[in-house]
Amino acid sequence: MKIEGVDFFYLSMPEVTTAADGSQDALVVRVSAGGLIGWGECEASPLVSIAAFVTPMSHGACRSVSASVLGRDLNAPEDIHAIAADVAYYSMDLLQAAHTWSGIEMALWDLLGKARGEPAWKLLGYSRAWPKLPYASVLFGATPAETFERARDIREQGFQAAKFGWAPFGESPESDALQLDAAREGLGADGILLVDAGQVFVEDVEAASARLKAMERNRVTFFEEPFGGQSLSAYHALSQRAAAAGVGIAGGEAAHNRQMAEHLIDFGGVRYIQIDCGRIGGLGPAKAVADHAAAKGVTYVNHTFTSNLALSASLQPFAGLRDHRICEYPTGLQPLARELTLTRIMPDAEGLIHVPDAPGLGIEIDPAAIARYRVDVEIRVAGKSLFKSAM
Amino acid sequence: MKIEGVDFFYLSMPEVTTAADGSQDALVVRVSAGGLIGWGECEASPLVSIAAFVTPMSHGACRSVSASVLGRDLNAPEDIHAIAADVAYYSMDLLQAAHTWSGIEMALWDLLGKARGEPAWKLLGYSRAWPKLPYASVLFGATPAETFERARDIREQGFQAAKFGWAPFGESPESDALQLDAAREGLGADGILLVDAGQVFVEDVEAASARLKAMERNRVTFFEEPFGGQSLSAYHALSQRAAAAGVGIAGGEAAHNRQMAEHLIDFGGVRYIQIDCGRIGGLGPAKAVADHAAAKGVTYVNHTFTSNLALSASLQPFAGLRDHRICEYPTGLQPLARELTLTRIMPDAEGLIHVPDAPGLGIEIDPAAIARYRVDVEIRVAGKSLFKSAM
Repeated sequence: MKIEGVDFFYLSMPEVTTAADGSQDALVVRVSAGGLIGWGECEASPLVSIAAFVTPMSHGACRSVSASVLGRDLNAPEDIHAIAADVAYYSMDLLQAAHTWSGIEMALWDLLGKARGEPAWKLLGYSRAWPKLPYASVLFGATPAETFERARDIREQGFQAAKFGWAPFGESPESDALQLDAAREGLGADGILLVDAGQVFVEDVEAASARLKAMERNRVTFFEEPFGGQSLSAYHALSQRAAAAGVGIAGGEAAHNRQMAEHLIDFGGVRYIQIDCGRIGGLGPAKAVADHAAAKGVTYVNHTFTSNLALSASLQPFAGLRDHRICEYPTGLQPLARELTLTRIMPDAEGLIHVPDAPGLGIEIDPAAIARYRVDVEIRVAGKSLFKSAM
Repeated sequence: MKIEGVDFFYLSMPEVTTAADGSQDALVVRVSAGGLIGWGECEASPLVSIAAFVTPMSHGACRSVSASVLGRDLNAPEDIHAIAADVAYYSMDLLQAAHTWSGIEMALWDLLGKARGEPAWKLLGYSRAWPKLPYASVLFGATPAETFERARDIREQGFQAAKFGWAPFGESPESDALQLDAAREGLGADGILLVDAGQVFVEDVEAASARLKAMERNRVTFFEEPFGGQSLSAYHALSQRAAAAGVGIAGGEAAHNRQMAEHLIDFGGVRYIQIDCGRIGGLGPAKAVADHAAAKGVTYVNHTFTSNLALSASLQPFAGLRDHRICEYPTGLQPLARELTLTRIMPDAEGLIHVPDAPGLGIEIDPAAIARYRVDVEIRVAGKSLFKSAM
């Protein structure tokens, strides 16, 4: 097969707020080759990622993503890796390229899986997929009482694990401690409690450390993204103190290539490496990070805060790793992210979720949802239309 | 003052080729505040960087760059640092943001310097600026004979140092050795010879090491970007072997934040850290990297392959470091990059160049050149025009 077409669909809720809720818009990618269709999703700014696909070349090492993708062969996993290498090299000075490519790469695995009648995780080299224990991923409540309610609701829905994140966490050690106490109380003594700081401590190791005592008391399993994604020295310093409190440091969602994630493991000392396939360059580099993590005794976890298409993609790279058991499972998605997929990945009677055992990513897209939430985009350069939303 | 306006000018040569020549297009930034104008330049894809300035918000941590810039106070260096922190935080999921912000940040120092009647390097904390020894930065010739001619021409122009880069370097250890011999012969025994591999070895340490013997024989001072900008482990492995051959490893131009550059020093073992102010987020983080480099005994070098506006900006962060003496000085610029500035930074009788001792970046822009090379851009989202080239 040859890659014949790559179409982008920018979807958005009618109103987008400043909440840290990544499901308010979406960039869905449709790739066509050999009479088949593959779907992917960039976890990225839709407009900017589209621009990186169509932009005129600046020079040989700053070419558009499309220049490395359109017309290429797609017959085996090696073809996807070869295109990935070309995007990395020929778009090395185009910063946004990794985000644009991520959704395309996902769609290529979906398409190749459909052509071969095999799930993507088999193409990645796994012989079977293990169930995962989903943690409900939600934002902290505005007050400890609200957080308590959310935690109790999550437990009543049957989840055994929950992650609370972002503001107001970070306001003060005292108010954060009350939030953590409330989350633990609502979740019950045996629930798995996880915390996402949303980079609020930037690179202030002391400020982050001041939260460890309340985390130890509330048996927090991991403390995610205390710092900016690149602050390896801060990660390293905190990881040692956190280990003494029985808390693992987690991070990696900002990684836009394999190496960034590996550095968090090798130099940052994280115990949980969280990969967003919609940013790191898709399933290929994510699988390489999973291999690296397993070799280093670090637990791989997906980062997913958008649709079930992105969720399926994010499960593939560690589907075959039995001991890497917890997975992020967003529960408060906006309607566009819920409605995008006709297939839903739901917890079974034991509260576990299963990566689809179906060709490719195993997710059917609802074209009506795309039509409902679509945002029209047109980009014109030097009098020529470089992009106009596809029908 | 308040930041009233930020305008982008996408300039391009009529034809852009796949040569690794970053001066074929440009993204020039004009900032207005308090009746003054500041100029900057992003070393980045113009279209994609513009899109990152105007894009609709995806969520609270994926906002446009404009959201953190327009209307902000600009009265002191601290104001620039505060805006930088906001861009990093509120645009953390917008990958291209660092490239867009870099040109704006440059323009803010230019503007603040004009308001205070002081050069940017003084605002950065230096009390004086030292002359720099420019190395002519050119591409390798297609053949060793062509490289020899280029080296001889450079020497005849009065340069004491030259850097050769990119293809065909990397083809084979044997052909690369011939290229290096030719460069040394053309440059003369006492010239400073530098090599830029343009990431051609990706992360293959053995392939890069196979070039060290010919580098040692030709007394190559530094071996730049053997690998992708993120391949810290490969950098680390090569830096030890290179040291034994008397060659310093150089890198850093891809750094789009301070930490990436510091990691190349701390974990990658580079001896020369090369910063492009048009990518790293401007002068502020570049100055921080210069401080870090000086503290670690690593030499700071600018990375510049575009106009004299970018050159002046790139000299400011290490203007006051006497011992960090060599600087990149592009000599084969396309007409648009030459004509953009009425001010030219030229070597003096001793072959040294001087950062302008004038307010801000000290570079006068030629509006006629902007008009001559301007490319019109329009970006429309949901029926509204988000960007239309300014007059």
